[in-house]
Amino acid sequence: KGDAKAGEEKAVMCVACHGATGKVSVPLYPNLAGQNAEYLAHALQAYKKGERSGGQAEIMKAYVSGLSDSDIDNLAAYYASQKP
Amino acid sequence: KGDAKAGEEKAVMCVACHGATGKVSVPLYPNLAGQNAEYLAHALQAYKKGERSGGQAEIMKAYVSGLSDSDIDNLAAYYASQKP
Repeated sequence: KGDAKAGEEKAVMCVACHGATGKVSVPLYPNLAGQNAEYLAHALQAYKKGERSGGQAEIMKAYVSGLSDSDIDNLAAYYASQKP
Repeated sequence: KGDAKAGEEKAVMCVACHGATGKVSVPLYPNLAGQNAEYLAHALQAYKKGERSGGQAEIMKAYVSGLSDSDIDNLAAYYASQKP
């Protein structure tokens, strides 16, 4: 349901850790390219709601706190559309 | 650091939702194939420690509660070794 093109524009905040196309250089971080959009949106919502802790969860929460549901769906659509 | 072969044997408990080779049929669940082993191990440990809630987190916690650190590393190595 997200708009991948809008998500690509929003992804500027994600690329430092997750890569422009969702393939990471730091193995502790997850690749996002080709992941299911529904799962990506779920994970972002979980960080936003504080349902994840430990690791980078506080950092993720800070990043996603300003995102709307549409932003989240768009980002999920963008990374899901990238080739793994 | 995990043993992918040992992980494959342990993965029988994962396949109903995550697929034998880590590619899911239910889009709410994450693909695991080709994901970074370090991230997969981190995520499993987070479920085990109760650092994730919401969604399927309680189910994941139940599944991983009986896994040793070695089991977790082996499962992570197995799914990381699968082609996305």
